[in-house]
Amino acid sequence: MNSGVIVSDLPTEKDFIRVFSDVFRLKNKPLLSGSEFDDCAALRLDSFAKNLSGESLTFSTDTVRESTDFPNGTTLWQKGWMSAAVNLSDLAAMGSKPIAFLFSAGLPKGFTLKDTEEFARGIQDCVSFFGAEVIGGDTEINNELTITGTVIGLSENKTLLLRKNAQPGDLLCVTGFPGSAGVSLSVLLNEIQTNISNGSVGSVSDSFLKNLTEPFPRIFEGLMLAKSGAVHSMIDTSDGLASSVYELSTLSGVFFEIDEQSLPFDSEALDILSCHLKNQNENQSVTDEQIAAKAHALLVHEALYTGGDYELLFTIPSGKLSLVEELFEIFNQNAASRFESLPSSGKTGRSPCQFTVIGKAIADKENVIIRHAGLNSQRQPLLKIGYDSFKKYI
Amino acid sequence: MNSGVIVSDLPTEKDFIRVFSDVFRLKNKPLLSGSEFDDCAALRLDSFAKNLSGESLTFSTDTVRESTDFPNGTTLWQKGWMSAAVNLSDLAAMGSKPIAFLFSAGLPKGFTLKDTEEFARGIQDCVSFFGAEVIGGDTEINNELTITGTVIGLSENKTLLLRKNAQPGDLLCVTGFPGSAGVSLSVLLNEIQTNISNGSVGSVSDSFLKNLTEPFPRIFEGLMLAKSGAVHSMIDTSDGLASSVYELSTLSGVFFEIDEQSLPFDSEALDILSCHLKNQNENQSVTDEQIAAKAHALLVHEALYTGGDYELLFTIPSGKLSLVEELFEIFNQNAASRFESLPSSGKTGRSPCQFTVIGKAIADKENVIIRHAGLNSQRQPLLKIGYDSFKKYI
Repeated sequence: MNSGVIVSDLPTEKDFIRVFSDVFRLKNKPLLSGSEFDDCAALRLDSFAKNLSGESLTFSTDTVRESTDFPNGTTLWQKGWMSAAVNLSDLAAMGSKPIAFLFSAGLPKGFTLKDTEEFARGIQDCVSFFGAEVIGGDTEINNELTITGTVIGLSENKTLLLRKNAQPGDLLCVTGFPGSAGVSLSVLLNEIQTNISNGSVGSVSDSFLKNLTEPFPRIFEGLMLAKSGAVHSMIDTSDGLASSVYELSTLSGVFFEIDEQSLPFDSEALDILSCHLKNQNENQSVTDEQIAAKAHALLVHEALYTGGDYELLFTIPSGKLSLVEELFEIFNQNAASRFESLPSSGKTGRSPCQFTVIGKAIADKENVIIRHAGLNSQRQPLLKIGYDSFKKYI
Repeated sequence: MNSGVIVSDLPTEKDFIRVFSDVFRLKNKPLLSGSEFDDCAALRLDSFAKNLSGESLTFSTDTVRESTDFPNGTTLWQKGWMSAAVNLSDLAAMGSKPIAFLFSAGLPKGFTLKDTEEFARGIQDCVSFFGAEVIGGDTEINNELTITGTVIGLSENKTLLLRKNAQPGDLLCVTGFPGSAGVSLSVLLNEIQTNISNGSVGSVSDSFLKNLTEPFPRIFEGLMLAKSGAVHSMIDTSDGLASSVYELSTLSGVFFEIDEQSLPFDSEALDILSCHLKNQNENQSVTDEQIAAKAHALLVHEALYTGGDYELLFTIPSGKLSLVEELFEIFNQNAASRFESLPSSGKTGRSPCQFTVIGKAIADKENVIIRHAGLNSQRQPLLKIGYDSFKKYI
């Protein structure tokens, strides 16, 4: 069939489901009980679970859609990828292993078969990279591209990582570079000016923008942390670091002190913000040190209060730090070969995942505190704000 | 909190999730592994499965939304009910037992806390009536009420009912009264005129309209049929009877002959259509017999080609007919007490579920055939049309 055909012009839904089934080929056939053409996907328990009394299935569901989740320039492949990734990140946050993915997609009127294939390929590449399979879907025509995904995972009950078990004295750790998604969003919304002529950084790399448009759920890191036995509590940072720290705090009944100076940042994020600031202050006498300090402060704000990063935030007793460091080191030795199975568009710019200690859990009933950088190391309550799906960010 | 508060005016999503958690109280606490506040719902395998090597989990996902699925006059409770029911019907069609339900809801801007509660109550009442629990959800603000549900069920592998195993000679059976949802839709869209002054039926009962607005998934009937061992193939009729018969035909490699005269109809559906026809022909001399025949023909059309009924269509070898009749008889003895657990609004007008033999599977490679009523019993190919989510019905 001509791939330029518009989906809503097809005689029936069935005429185009074939496009999906071609993309979503099951690798592990015995996963399903012969139900490929039926009302439900039937997943054989013995194809993934080992132990009824010791395992749990994990489930999460999340919607992404054109007007609120896909900034201009997001490709269809990325939209598919993102719709799976945001769901997978919820499994990552509990250290659970992805098994299967279902979705219900509303496709806009002008959507072609080629669009469908590229979008489906994004879902398939993400789901399959993280070890799961697409087992079902439902489609309809909608006024904007809207995808609700549901992800199914498996955990051993005894290694399931929850938000509620942080202990006083625990080290607070985060993976990756928080704030990068927030900065990417500002770039894509043209809120910050990066094309300047005075010799500073003038462009933003595609791989940097992937922090927002191709979130990389920390599935493998989550599984490794769950198996390590070192972690007391965990959550992802999709609503922003501050919001996630407050969640751990509220549910665990402990407080935290975060060291601003220790927050790990992507150097490109700092360069982009410095460039923007230089541009804004072109005709004023501002030193490079002042620009750097201000860029750092802006990035701290992005990291703490903006959503879109899908990093893991977790707490460990200090005695387990070297164990977790060793595990990450071993894990990252295979990073390059792991990324090999991604399609070329998804592979570029991927780098091993680091983690950083950014603070500690405290028993004092004062508040969640941030200790600012600078000479006098001022301690202030962390603001309780973050991304909220009621106030979407675009 | 004041229940008139508009949801999108609340400071954060968390402020109103409480409304949902109050409604979705888990009866079976050990179902979840202590994960009430986490990114995923974690369902303990040993809380519902018995046998890894003999059981499958079943999954389905489906979206309903304001502009395409809720005719004017549908209450918020009914919208909640329907969003669960359409998903549950997919489990019913495979004879699978519902375990859990998750949803992602887009709420419109003016939605109040009271609206949220009524809507959530509809979901909860439906899910809980059919023996499952709401284990997770996600909400955002959208331009129209949109709900994607995901249902999780459990089946023994050996009793899982698929579309593909119909055998030549099988009797083709349907539950309930097909066409009723289609007639209800025409009433709600004011396409048929039921308020007349000449003494005929002048109003449509609320319970009749429930055929469309409160679909009643045949979960218990599906489970009973799966356990009976009598059924070769099964599907639900949500896309219309003709479309479903063609599905069984295509996937099983058999054909069917349907006897129009045997199609079971709700007498109120016939009365409504008769009334409409009388109204249209008020000034012409048309006999009551002619009206009745025409009403019957219209209802045949609704039953075959319109979606919205959620009945079961299944095939059994003729030798198993009396067994299935007995099972339905026993099952219906408890119907009244079963409906007792529904809230009053959902209880009215519910009646025991009958099933009817409407045709048989044939090996002849001619087509799916309908044998029309009337003196000459004309045989014609069944049209291959039905409800399609690409051409939504409102």
